[in-house]
Amino acid sequence: MNLLLIEADERLEPGLARVEGRKARHLREVLGKGVGQAVRVGELGGRMGQGVVLALDDDHALVRYEAHEPPPEPSPVRLVLALPRPPMLRRILQHATSLGVKRVVLLHTARVEKSFWGSHALRDAELGAQLRLGLEQARDTVLPEVALRRRFRPFVEDELAAWQGDKLVAHPEPGAPWPAAATGPTTIVVGPEGGLVPFELDTLRAAGCAAVGLGPRILRVETAVVALVARLCG
Amino acid sequence: MNLLLIEADERLEPGLARVEGRKARHLREVLGKGVGQAVRVGELGGRMGQGVVLALDDDHALVRYEAHEPPPEPSPVRLVLALPRPPMLRRILQHATSLGVKRVVLLHTARVEKSFWGSHALRDAELGAQLRLGLEQARDTVLPEVALRRRFRPFVEDELAAWQGDKLVAHPEPGAPWPAAATGPTTIVVGPEGGLVPFELDTLRAAGCAAVGLGPRILRVETAVVALVARLCG
Repeated sequence: MNLLLIEADERLEPGLARVEGRKARHLREVLGKGVGQAVRVGELGGRMGQGVVLALDDDHALVRYEAHEPPPEPSPVRLVLALPRPPMLRRILQHATSLGVKRVVLLHTARVEKSFWGSHALRDAELGAQLRLGLEQARDTVLPEVALRRRFRPFVEDELAAWQGDKLVAHPEPGAPWPAAATGPTTIVVGPEGGLVPFELDTLRAAGCAAVGLGPRILRVETAVVALVARLCG
Repeated sequence: MNLLLIEADERLEPGLARVEGRKARHLREVLGKGVGQAVRVGELGGRMGQGVVLALDDDHALVRYEAHEPPPEPSPVRLVLALPRPPMLRRILQHATSLGVKRVVLLHTARVEKSFWGSHALRDAELGAQLRLGLEQARDTVLPEVALRRRFRPFVEDELAAWQGDKLVAHPEPGAPWPAAATGPTTIVVGPEGGLVPFELDTLRAAGCAAVGLGPRILRVETAVVALVARLCG
């Protein structure tokens, strides 16, 4: 946790916040903070700055702060991801959030196990928890939007096709170029562990997606997502 | 497992291998292979090709194969990594191996917890297991070399300083450029979660390392390693 992220309901008055549970324990036990010590803070969806711990006990912390700095610039990368298995989804959401991605679509494809859609990991509270961990790690305050799309073709043909900017699909075919730095809003589609099926690739190509690759090796989705986003940034 | 990796002691005769335990179970239970079915194989440290399952029971598989294809080209990236906590080390070794990194140094720095050096994760067998998982994922046969260096300064001044090629240190200082594609052998030094201390940065700079960054956000080491290697590849 490199930033104490303050939610609207944790603000007692302007510049004064009371956090409890995990955050208070993390401040004390992991970061070793005590009364009078400085802590980086950010208001969820808002500005960042410096705070000082006014009080701290087992389960609560009171923090006085000023927050005048804007959060870092969002990444231009949008991620469309075949729904991965829940433990990997959690890690990917943290990776992508920490890399500054602000738009994520979790998509059904032929090789996504249907049972994944029933996972607790997809509940709003659980998604929100992973995204917040990513923001706390990265020192950012702006939550990514995560959308769930259980029907592949309507999403690709009716939504994705109309999105502005470059569109790419990660596909390990011989000769697919490595992705280069994005020059504007860029969408990257990443298939499931078993890959996209030919119909899906054709549909994505028809929606304007160009194939990119990451060399001859087969990467886990988690590795591939970080590698792709990192190549498209900066 | 995208490749059945065959160890020297699993070769009964040229082109015939007998694997047991995890590999046999994975073939049957995860990949759903049965007698007569094709499987991608590679000889550890050698060539890759196609095999066919001759026999398969609870704990053993017999595979006839031909292996004439070379493994993919190694990555030019060498990774020098402040020893991370064991669970993250395991994942990073798999990520780096799957990205084709062939040389990894695990290094002590001021902010590495000394207890990490006593971890089971550093035993030869355990390191080897993670590297093999990376090779099986990526379809590669060449194990990375992993070296442990518990003394920072002798390693940097006596070894790293003499290494050929570009040398970079990941350091989130304002203005540090994003790393660009490597044009030859390139070493990237990645500090611990708490960062490198000024003396360490000075020592690395004196050994020829130039600072690179990944933007304003603070990344976990795991995310940073994949991002850095991916930007240096291809």
